[in-house]
Formats: sequence, structure tokens, C-alpha cells
Amino acid sequence: MATRFADRMQTVHRSFIREILKVTEDTSIISFAGGLPNPELFPVETMQKAASDVLSQSGPEALQYSTTEGYQPLRQFIADRYRSKKGIEVDPDEILITSGSQQCLDLLGKVFLNAGDNVIFERPGYLGAIQSFSVFQSGFVTVGLEEDGPDLDELEKALRKDNTKLFYAVPNFQNPSGLTYSAEKRAGVAEVMKGSDTLFIEDDPYGELRFMGEHQKPLSRGYIKDGSVLLGSFSKIAAPGFRLGWIVADKEIRDRLVVAKQASDLHTSTVSQRIMYRYLSDNDIDSHIEKIRDRYGRQRQKMVESIERFFPEEIKVTKPEGGMFLWATLPEGMSSMDLFDTAISHKVAFVPGRPFYVDGSGDNTFRLNFSNSDEERIAEGVKRLGNCLKDYLAK
Amino acid sequence: MATRFADRMQTVHRSFIREILKVTEDTSIISFAGGLPNPELFPVETMQKAASDVLSQSGPEALQYSTTEGYQPLRQFIADRYRSKKGIEVDPDEILITSGSQQCLDLLGKVFLNAGDNVIFERPGYLGAIQSFSVFQSGFVTVGLEEDGPDLDELEKALRKDNTKLFYAVPNFQNPSGLTYSAEKRAGVAEVMKGSDTLFIEDDPYGELRFMGEHQKPLSRGYIKDGSVLLGSFSKIAAPGFRLGWIVADKEIRDRLVVAKQASDLHTSTVSQRIMYRYLSDNDIDSHIEKIRDRYGRQRQKMVESIERFFPEEIKVTKPEGGMFLWATLPEGMSSMDLFDTAISHKVAFVPGRPFYVDGSGDNTFRLNFSNSDEERIAEGVKRLGNCLKDYLAK
Repeated sequence: MATRFADRMQTVHRSFIREILKVTEDTSIISFAGGLPNPELFPVETMQKAASDVLSQSGPEALQYSTTEGYQPLRQFIADRYRSKKGIEVDPDEILITSGSQQCLDLLGKVFLNAGDNVIFERPGYLGAIQSFSVFQSGFVTVGLEEDGPDLDELEKALRKDNTKLFYAVPNFQNPSGLTYSAEKRAGVAEVMKGSDTLFIEDDPYGELRFMGEHQKPLSRGYIKDGSVLLGSFSKIAAPGFRLGWIVADKEIRDRLVVAKQASDLHTSTVSQRIMYRYLSDNDIDSHIEKIRDRYGRQRQKMVESIERFFPEEIKVTKPEGGMFLWATLPEGMSSMDLFDTAISHKVAFVPGRPFYVDGSGDNTFRLNFSNSDEERIAEGVKRLGNCLKDYLAK
Repeated sequence: MATRFADRMQTVHRSFIREILKVTEDTSIISFAGGLPNPELFPVETMQKAASDVLSQSGPEALQYSTTEGYQPLRQFIADRYRSKKGIEVDPDEILITSGSQQCLDLLGKVFLNAGDNVIFERPGYLGAIQSFSVFQSGFVTVGLEEDGPDLDELEKALRKDNTKLFYAVPNFQNPSGLTYSAEKRAGVAEVMKGSDTLFIEDDPYGELRFMGEHQKPLSRGYIKDGSVLLGSFSKIAAPGFRLGWIVADKEIRDRLVVAKQASDLHTSTVSQRIMYRYLSDNDIDSHIEKIRDRYGRQRQKMVESIERFFPEEIKVTKPEGGMFLWATLPEGMSSMDLFDTAISHKVAFVPGRPFYVDGSGDNTFRLNFSNSDEERIAEGVKRLGNCLKDYLAK
């Protein structure tokens, strides 16, 4: 049989990162390529207790079908936390629980994008979002990231283009760059977007992982009063294996997202939602997040110091105040793809930057992950990569 | 802000059934409207042990990100079970684990449907599939269901239409009708489809719930050698709260589905997959399914007997050999929507049939669920409905 696939899948490819991860399965390679949380920090014992309590006390409910919107006490917990931690008002009925925050992107694509509509996208930007929106045959208009956030002139120009339905941003410790929007840039983005009918999508999986400096208010509801949605995730503060994320949206949009989710997977795992809620209500998530911050903060510190020691000074690297990634830039004209092959032979890995650029640029950039290696391996890996860079620059 | 939604969502509506379920939350109403498994049969204690074992023995792995394809031992289990129970050969690498079998429909829509492509659809057909495919702006060409399966002449005509990319069928104890394709009809469908490039989608959530009669071989691989996919689910044989389903597809199609799933939600919950696998390997799922069959079989028996006793003889009702539903047909020209309001005032509920017909017909049909009520409530509910039907017919 000649299978006849839909046009939409022609531009969607397997995640480049997932392909790279296969190369780095060799344990002699020190890999800064992944984007995994450190599993040593997963709250295994408390989750085991939470699972046991949920199944012994409300087993039949936990194993049954449930509402598309999500478990109400979990939505209430999230709303309360926004009020106490971020100073923004969210109603539990404005929250939809999703199968990871990746699903939010799929649902937003479904609800908003006709083929040919444009998405304003950070340059570089999050690979998973490129995949999700590409399924809906979107175009992309990119806006460059500066040290403190997007280039506002470029953003203004992008907003004037036709059919720019969405602006997708990761304002805290962005994947891949590690960059964070400053308060001034947040206000600037809100000002530029005022009156626009482009929806601002604020994806914030890393916001709680701040090691230094001051927490920033979300743009959504903090700066942009109307026309934004806010995505969150338990993957980086508790555990990704549950696939639990959420979206905050005004009721009109949230209603549409609920319909799209019903058609996509009926609802998110009842078991997962109830175990997570039990874990959150029986434990102090703040002190757990503090442990993660402490560990990742030290790992980030070790990576920054090792880079200062071992990298040639021509290589520019960001110094994020949180999150999981650093972003390196080689001198113009060089290719991190070429460097990748050399690095593998030196038993160290990273992710070449080009896939994070929808416009095909970024050949001289690469991403380094520090959350999933201990300090010793970070020091050794950066040293290997430093040697490799010296060889490469000398060519 | 004027939000501008995508065209695709204009034809997708909230599930009518989920709206009806809200009406029936009043516990004085005996509801045959839902489609829920009986929670008394959920293996709560063994799942609790499985969850505990998974988290204590492989906690960090269970809480981490994992592959899009799904947990290999779980895929192996499913493949082995197809061989031993259904007599068909499936390679674990032809299986993709999904977030419930509903997600398979979403992924198939993504991978196969351009706007305007047609889906061949049973009349009546599964509501969740109408929702999923509508998101991709498909058209529908319907094929009537007879007692023993689809009308083959109608199927032949449907296959001759342009762009009939998919034929979606639920050949065992269909939702909503309870009907099952006979061996002859299976062979007939395979014969009619031979050489067609329409993909046969066989959705089989209820196949293991047979109370009497003989198990049928799947059409996919059993009768149709090429050009079919087969969907399965743990929702009806173990528990739906995990949201665990799967699709069997040849490698070319499965590869495309993996890419679509990556973009949709990265992967299905690692925790859920590992707990389910542990449950399946440490317990005898066959004896558990036997318990479900025994209970549902008795409930089905009570419903059939009560209908014979209390329904006016003008009402035709199917007598399925398995599954969860019976299907009733009123005399031509009558409306189950009108009947619904009367039924609610008599404190009994069902699902009116029209939403299961994409062509707007079926006004005189309705669905009755027997899995989620005990025998006593079934007898009382059918009695109430019988009185209500007598009143309605007398009008």
C-alpha cells in the first residue's frame, strides 16, 4: 500500500536532540547535550508514600476516568502558589492540567494556528515549540535575544507582519540560551504588544530554579493584562516522569483548549495528578526546590569557573542566574557541527546550536547543560571541551 | 483583545456525553449514560503494591523523562500477548505507547489527514473519533452497521470516493452499538479493501470483554495483511486513570507517529508505564479479566432480561456478547432527545443517539451502558425507563 501522509508532517522532524542523545549513551562520554533534571534530586521516597496513600485512600477514584480540566485541588494549589510566590491572581478555573507543558504547545497550535499563520519566535528558541507549531504549518518570524531579553525594534516589526497569531517566549533562563528578560524588557515587551491581537505565550518551566539575583514577575498578568497565556510544569521542580504541566488562560481561551484536549487525550492521568497533589500537600515543596537550587547552583558555578579556566577567550558563554543551560558562541564563521564530531572523539558532547534557529543561522553556537552532571564530571568535561576548542581554533 | 481562533476548531464541540454526565451527577438518577468501567473491579491493592515496588526499586528511572516510543518491556508484553491470545505477529518495535488510545486518533489525524480528506466512519460511530478527526477538518463518509458488521456495498462505494484516507472501525462490541463484526464480515471487509490505499484503523478497547460466543481474530494482520493499524487500551481491562493505550503500525507509519507524538507530549508518563508493566508481570491479568467478564456479563444479562420484561415490544435493542453497551432503536419518527427529558424526570438517564451519527440521522436511537451499575440498579433503572417509554409511545 502506498501510504499517503498529510502535508503537515513534511516539515516536522524527529527531535535532533533526541537523536544526539543516542550518540551520547556511551558512558565514557561526558555529556552536556541532554536537558534532563538530575535524578538524584527526585523525591523518590516521598513520592512512594504519596502514591501509596492515594491508592489506599482513594484508589477507585484515582484509577477512574476524570475531568478534562484536571484535578480541582491540584488546580487550586497552582493558583494559590501563583498568588503567594509570583503575586499574580489566577482562578483555578483558568487552569487546564496538561500531559506535560509540551502538550500546551500542541493545544495552542490546534486552537490558534491556520496553515500559514505566523508565530513570533525567539532567536535562538525552544526546539520542542518549533516541532509543535510546525505540525500546524505555521511560519516563523524571529526576534533576536539580547542579554536582557528580546530586541524590541525587531519585535515591533514582527508584530506588524500579517497573521502573527502568537508570540512564544521563555522569559526565565531560556532553553537554550539561559537568558532572562529584565524588568525593563518585560515592561518594554508589554508596551510594544499593547493593542496587538497577537497572543503572548509565556513558557516558564525554569522560573523557580533561580540561584542568584531577584525573581521576576511573570509578563502574563504581571505586565501584560490581556492577551497572554502562561505555561507551567512540575518536570523541573518535582519530576518529569509524571508528564504534568498546565496552562493559565482566560476563560474563553481555556474553554477552547479544553475542547482541543478532549479530542487529544480525554484528560491527563488521574493517578499522576492525585499523586502529585498528595506529594505537594504533604511535603514542603519550597524546601525541596531549595535543594535543587543549591545543587544546580553549584554545578552552574563549577561550569562557569571551569569555562573561565579551560576555554579559549574567543569563546563567549552566557552566565545565567538559574535554569539548566549555558550558551556558547564561537567566533563568526565557525561551525559547532564540525566541533561536535571532534568533541565526541574527545569523549565530551553538547548540542550544536543551529536547530534552535528557525532561520537556519546560529551555526557558530552551542548549548551546554549543567543540571545532569556532578561537579567533578563538569570540571573534567569542560577541560576536554577546552582542549577540543583549542585544537579547533588552531586549525 | 479579539482572539482569533483557528478554523479547525469551528466544527469541534465539547463532548455531548460529558455535558450529559453533568446532568446525571444527581445520585437519585440511575444513569446508563456514562461509559465508565465499574470502579469496584479496579485492582487497587495490587496496583498499590506495583507502584510501591516500582518507586522503591527503580524510583529515579520511573520519575525521569523517557523515550517517545514507550517502555520496552511493556511493548514486549503487549506483543507477546497478541501472539498468545490473538494469534497475530507483532514486533515490539511496531508498537507506540500512547496517552490513552484516544491519543492514537489524534496522532493518526496529524499524520494522515489534510483538510478535506475523508474518513470512512461507521453509522453509528464512536463519538471521540468524530471529535479527533474533526480537528483535522476531515469529511466523513458513513457506512451503515448491520447486526454482523458493515454494509459491504456501502463500504465499496465509500472506498471509491476521492481522498478516503482512513476507515475507522470498532469491530468488537462497538461503542455505541455493542455490535461485533462476524468472521464472514471480517473476511468481506478485507476482500473489499484489497488494493485500496485507504488505511484501516481497528480500534479494539473492548475485545477482551467477551461474555459468550467465540473470540474473533483482529482484522488487522488477521484478515488485512497490509494497510492497517490496530489500537489497544488498558482502560477497560485494568484501569483508565493511567491513560495508557497503544497503537500497532508497520514501521514506516509508526516512525511518523513517533514524530507526531514527540511534538504532542514528548512521551507517555514513565511512572504510569512502569507501574502498569509491574502490575502485569506480577499478577495474572487473565484471571482479573475473567472477574470483569463475569461481573459485566451478569450486568448485561440483567439489563437484557429487564428490557424484555419492561420495555414495550416496539423498542428494538441489541444483545451484545460483550463490551459495555446496548443500543436501542425507537419506532421511526420518534426522538430520543424528547425521551431524554422525560427520562430525567423519571430519574433515569441514557445517551441520545444522534451525536453518534455524523450525517445527522439516528434521532430515534439511544445508548445504554451496563458496566457501571449493579444488577439491582439496572433492574430498577430499566423499569423506570420502560414506564417512561410507555408514556412516550402513548403520546
